[in-house]
Amino acid sequence: MTPTGRHFLQIPGPTNTPDRVLRAMAAPTIDHRGPQFAELGLAVLEALKPVFGTTQPVVIYPASGTGAWEAALVNTLSPGDTVVCFETGHFATLWQEMARRLGLEVDFVPGDWRHGVDPEAVADKLRNDPGHRIKAVLVVHNETSTGVTSRIAEIRQAIDSTGHPALLLVDTISSLGSIEYQHDAWGVDVTVAGSQKGLMLPPGLSFNAISQKALEASKTARLRRSFWDWQPILEANQRGFFPYTPATNLLYGLREALRMLDEEGLANVYARHRRHAEATRLAVRGWGLEVLCADEREHSGSLTAVVVPDGYDADKIRAVILDRYNMSLGAGLGKLAGKIFRIGHLGDFNDLMLAGTLAGVQMGLVAAGVPIDATGINAALDRLQRP
Amino acid sequence: MTPTGRHFLQIPGPTNTPDRVLRAMAAPTIDHRGPQFAELGLAVLEALKPVFGTTQPVVIYPASGTGAWEAALVNTLSPGDTVVCFETGHFATLWQEMARRLGLEVDFVPGDWRHGVDPEAVADKLRNDPGHRIKAVLVVHNETSTGVTSRIAEIRQAIDSTGHPALLLVDTISSLGSIEYQHDAWGVDVTVAGSQKGLMLPPGLSFNAISQKALEASKTARLRRSFWDWQPILEANQRGFFPYTPATNLLYGLREALRMLDEEGLANVYARHRRHAEATRLAVRGWGLEVLCADEREHSGSLTAVVVPDGYDADKIRAVILDRYNMSLGAGLGKLAGKIFRIGHLGDFNDLMLAGTLAGVQMGLVAAGVPIDATGINAALDRLQRP
Amino acid sequence: MTPTGRHFLQIPGPTNTPDRVLRAMAAPTIDHRGPQFAELGLAVLEALKPVFGTTQPVVIYPASGTGAWEAALVNTLSPGDTVVCFETGHFATLWQEMARRLGLEVDFVPGDWRHGVDPEAVADKLRNDPGHRIKAVLVVHNETSTGVTSRIAEIRQAIDSTGHPALLLVDTISSLGSIEYQHDAWGVDVTVAGSQKGLMLPPGLSFNAISQKALEASKTARLRRSFWDWQPILEANQRGFFPYTPATNLLYGLREALRMLDEEGLANVYARHRRHAEATRLAVRGWGLEVLCADEREHSGSLTAVVVPDGYDADKIRAVILDRYNMSLGAGLGKLAGKIFRIGHLGDFNDLMLAGTLAGVQMGLVAAGVPIDATGINAALDRLQRP
Amino acid sequence: MTPTGRHFLQIPGPTNTPDRVLRAMAAPTIDHRGPQFAELGLAVLEALKPVFGTTQPVVIYPASGTGAWEAALVNTLSPGDTVVCFETGHFATLWQEMARRLGLEVDFVPGDWRHGVDPEAVADKLRNDPGHRIKAVLVVHNETSTGVTSRIAEIRQAIDSTGHPALLLVDTISSLGSIEYQHDAWGVDVTVAGSQKGLMLPPGLSFNAISQKALEASKTARLRRSFWDWQPILEANQRGFFPYTPATNLLYGLREALRMLDEEGLANVYARHRRHAEATRLAVRGWGLEVLCADEREHSGSLTAVVVPDGYDADKIRAVILDRYNMSLGAGLGKLAGKIFRIGHLGDFNDLMLAGTLAGVQMGLVAAGVPIDATGINAALDRLQRP
Repeated sequence: MTPTGRHFLQIPGPTNTPDRVLRAMAAPTIDHRGPQFAELGLAVLEALKPVFGTTQPVVIYPASGTGAWEAALVNTLSPGDTVVCFETGHFATLWQEMARRLGLEVDFVPGDWRHGVDPEAVADKLRNDPGHRIKAVLVVHNETSTGVTSRIAEIRQAIDSTGHPALLLVDTISSLGSIEYQHDAWGVDVTVAGSQKGLMLPPGLSFNAISQKALEASKTARLRRSFWDWQPILEANQRGFFPYTPATNLLYGLREALRMLDEEGLANVYARHRRHAEATRLAVRGWGLEVLCADEREHSGSLTAVVVPDGYDADKIRAVILDRYNMSLGAGLGKLAGKIFRIGHLGDFNDLMLAGTLAGVQMGLVAAGVPIDATGINAALDRLQRP
Repeated sequence: MTPTGRHFLQIPGPTNTPDRVLRAMAAPTIDHRGPQFAELGLAVLEALKPVFGTTQPVVIYPASGTGAWEAALVNTLSPGDTVVCFETGHFATLWQEMARRLGLEVDFVPGDWRHGVDPEAVADKLRNDPGHRIKAVLVVHNETSTGVTSRIAEIRQAIDSTGHPALLLVDTISSLGSIEYQHDAWGVDVTVAGSQKGLMLPPGLSFNAISQKALEASKTARLRRSFWDWQPILEANQRGFFPYTPATNLLYGLREALRMLDEEGLANVYARHRRHAEATRLAVRGWGLEVLCADEREHSGSLTAVVVPDGYDADKIRAVILDRYNMSLGAGLGKLAGKIFRIGHLGDFNDLMLAGTLAGVQMGLVAAGVPIDATGINAALDRLQRP
Repeated sequence: MTPTGRHFLQIPGPTNTPDRVLRAMAAPTIDHRGPQFAELGLAVLEALKPVFGTTQPVVIYPASGTGAWEAALVNTLSPGDTVVCFETGHFATLWQEMARRLGLEVDFVPGDWRHGVDPEAVADKLRNDPGHRIKAVLVVHNETSTGVTSRIAEIRQAIDSTGHPALLLVDTISSLGSIEYQHDAWGVDVTVAGSQKGLMLPPGLSFNAISQKALEASKTARLRRSFWDWQPILEANQRGFFPYTPATNLLYGLREALRMLDEEGLANVYARHRRHAEATRLAVRGWGLEVLCADEREHSGSLTAVVVPDGYDADKIRAVILDRYNMSLGAGLGKLAGKIFRIGHLGDFNDLMLAGTLAGVQMGLVAAGVPIDATGINAALDRLQRP
Repeated sequence: MTPTGRHFLQIPGPTNTPDRVLRAMAAPTIDHRGPQFAELGLAVLEALKPVFGTTQPVVIYPASGTGAWEAALVNTLSPGDTVVCFETGHFATLWQEMARRLGLEVDFVPGDWRHGVDPEAVADKLRNDPGHRIKAVLVVHNETSTGVTSRIAEIRQAIDSTGHPALLLVDTISSLGSIEYQHDAWGVDVTVAGSQKGLMLPPGLSFNAISQKALEASKTARLRRSFWDWQPILEANQRGFFPYTPATNLLYGLREALRMLDEEGLANVYARHRRHAEATRLAVRGWGLEVLCADEREHSGSLTAVVVPDGYDADKIRAVILDRYNMSLGAGLGKLAGKIFRIGHLGDFNDLMLAGTLAGVQMGLVAAGVPIDATGINAALDRLQRP
């Protein structure tokens, strides 16, 4: 069937790019060494800071988010350094694999993919490392593969309680601009982010927000780096430039997206995402299904992972929904493949888009033969009736 | 509250313009007298014909639909000619007013704004005109103000049954490309259409499809005309050109929109609109409200007008919905002001957009304090469960 | 040969649409009866006024310029009224033909297509009409077919000198936003304009600026009108709306184009066009060719018509230039067909675009075998060396 | 002065992005794991091959060209490996610096920045390395900083003549899609490219074309890599996907740009660039100035570097040209800062854009007080008179 109307891109990113951003990106490319570019560069570098909750520098890479993971590691660590990672899901697993490949020792704390990082477990690890062999703690703020959000402020407190000097590196790829985040106040050393989720851009830009302590660490860190090296970028950024060709048209989009976040107000942005997440969980439970996230304190504002009953294949359900209802949902990744699907409700979104999304999920579940209560959406609509 | 996400433009036109069409329109304007333009002109003039159900010429005006109303009249009629019109709603009323202003005599058959044109009434009028004073019958195919679709084929049969030579002029502004229409097979003489509804374009283009009989009539018609005159346009169209500057960028959009209709297939387009209209009525009745259209044979595939209970102001309900749910609905027009609102479900649309739309109406009605059954949407979702 | 790079659209309109305007037009269509539209409507209606040099109302039609010609006539005149027109070129000829077709008596003063309207001839006509049979004087400010600009202020003085009450209707289709124009100060009654020239938009909008006297005249004017009627438009415009569906996306473009004119400043806009026209004439004379305009006071700032030597076909030259150099030039129209070509240097334009344009003309003339001095462009570059 | 008209972006990249490509990029982002994406992925991966002159795999990075430099090194080499580089200019210098930073030993053969790589010097280096300490020869095909194109086929022959097994890594960032290039026929092992030059895209994508020998080398290469690792990319590419989020909207642009190159035909593309380069040199010499490239066999088809007479500052000239003529030119880089400027004539370009460009340079030189023959452009126009 020929799809008609607007596609519902309800994966947890890339998100539905606002037409304002797409039009901004369609402006002709300019000289990246001219005065007009400098204005653009300075503007976005400044406007990015509040979104990270920082007054410290934010580095922009003309690369996707995975690159910013690499950048966070190679700028702060040396071959053989130990990092502690927590198995919160697929992306935490990938990040620690990357760390290994780059020559780091990884202490990977196992997890059940239904919980965030336990602050107590962080404290334990560090307390048991009196020799400070551990150089960094890596945490995924919002696990895109599970819809579980770790409590960064509490993890910071846990670290501080031990007096251990390890750096705290946090992946906010699917939380930044959607779920409250405070790089400075929470004492994060490197925050990793990407463009294609809460920032409402197509993929192709990624970010490192950098603490003073991380900057210091970068001076002695000996992992080999060139493209990802913060130093020449920070230097050129002083005047709004970049040491190599930046992704100019994506920066146009970024400027527009940052304006949109500012117009709405970050507090409103976060509240909107929380409310949509809550409505989504009400629908899931209304259908008689289970939300993957097992801790009420850790539900994600960006996405909701839905557990499919035994005997049903989540990927077939997704295929039915794509085919019949012109909506993309997120697949179960890694060990969750086929067992869950993920509903993205982040980025440039509103109540009626969510209602359409939940209607599509409900109708798709029925079409796929999954036994549900097909009035589950009503609970979500009840919630959306209130601010 | 800052609106976020995609606006739901659920007025019965202009409709949600597909981004494909918007991008097509954003190409640089070309020389309207050059060879590249001729290709464009010939392509759209040809591709338009199946949408009208005709093999006869279709004239494109660089003007909005009201202009095409005027064109239909001034090309076929002479000062003092009598035309019969039927009060099916606001737009039928406006069209006959225009006829009066242009110097025609109008026999305006009253109506209750809940029914289409009665074919029997047409036959009566013509039978009672043995002197053939009546030169044309004017019918609005789909009354955009009421959501009632008149049965053109039956009206044609009624005319034919009387042997009266009156021309049949039909307004398809809110039906073309949404509700089945057959200019040739139904023996229509002039079909009036616009770009901003089923054709999925922004406003700014309008159309006259012209029968051989209408062309003949234009040779003796004496209403003054210059801009609207078919003759120079038809001549220039032979080579893909226009006698004065055409709206080139809207023609780019038209070419793309016609491709989209062709990809989907007109039969599928009509079936999609019928199904969405049916689902909408199920929701309305599920809420315990009344659909304005009073004849089951005449429900519109493009829009549904909903009667608001006594004591409630439809415009306040619409304002609440715009403010809270970022959706535009159509107002009651003329004598229906404040008493109904209209849900547009035409153009580039799909099941989840409809689900979002109906959810917004339902939540808005509750928010506005209208006593409804707030599970009405379930009946619509049941319907959308089936093809 | 596959054309590459940017097409040079050097016809005297449509002009090279700025990408800013094209992107603005690509925004989704909104509800033309909602609050967001009212803001747009009020904004453009206000911002248009300085461009016309008026504080009086300007009416916007969702139609091309030819429609605004018709509007100017049908709103101010009655059947059988006499109007005086001057044969300055093809468009003046078309306008008076339209006047005839609409039922007016036309006194068409012959001309040689190389001069503007002679103010003295205007005065003569009016002095010889003591009975005030003449109701309007029609003047094309800038003859797009010849590149000759009539001196409106002097024509106004000539009319005033006779004490005759005739209205002054002026076509500024290819001058507005390019050549200085003062609707109020010059005492024009109706100014006709279009979107696709100095206003830098695609075609599809047109305008009437209206004096108090013209408004008065419209109350008694008896030419039949409905679509073009000023009255309902002016009424709806009070609140930023239109009586029928406006061409919303073109209005987005208009808002952006008016911002661009305002950023540059109208005085700078006019000076830029004058300077480019001067440089163009220097090139033409450098090639040893003749400029069509025969009066130094009347050279157009928008376009330059070049006389092709006997024995050469201007249309063949244009075809060579289009084919080899990817540039469109204007054809000779009407009695000038094949004898001249027209270089448009109006709208969103700059020195290097002009240099490319003149290089293309020069190379095309050589390629077409026209005997010219192939260093003619140097004189233009000399001129562009200075502000 | 407010710039008007189209900016002339005549740096040697980013180039003037065609509006077709910009519009293609403005389509909404899609699910990078869905079936529609797979079609896109497979299409661009296949269509890229002829542009590289290869039937072997081409890897696409969501990163700018500097990243693809790093990718070529880290995938094929091990810590402490020796590579030979040639000082052809600024970018060759930067690439060898990157090699050093990544832990390689670099043998950097000095050069005068006016010549390409001497094939004989390559042979010498390899002949003097009987122990095969040298693992790779790094060559910049077209030095963007100097406008000198090295003769890759001859370099390959020189390597082959020695029987040395070193890999040949070639940077084609400013040549690919502009200057003839044959990855397979010339026996290149890794070809590095970027999106923003001959490929006519905004920056943000980069490429590695990979020979079988390079693939073999990657299996034992021990430089640490994760983001840049070919293996997971090549695997995912089999089905049209990528191991991490690709820059979807830039891939839309790439698909469109590859269509444009195909429509024109690569042979025509190369001929067009050669012809424009030739015309540019004629102008430079006509002005009495010197082209930086000192070997007639090595003139670049993409850009021309112009030596500014002693006592004049090339950057001031560029500033004058930007300010007065709305054109960006390339600066002298590194040791050439202030001494040359660079004219980019690559990408989506045509004769009249070049004429405008050269006119701007000529007028800017005069404006900046540089003593030139201000008719130099005539020699270029003479050249453009011929195919």
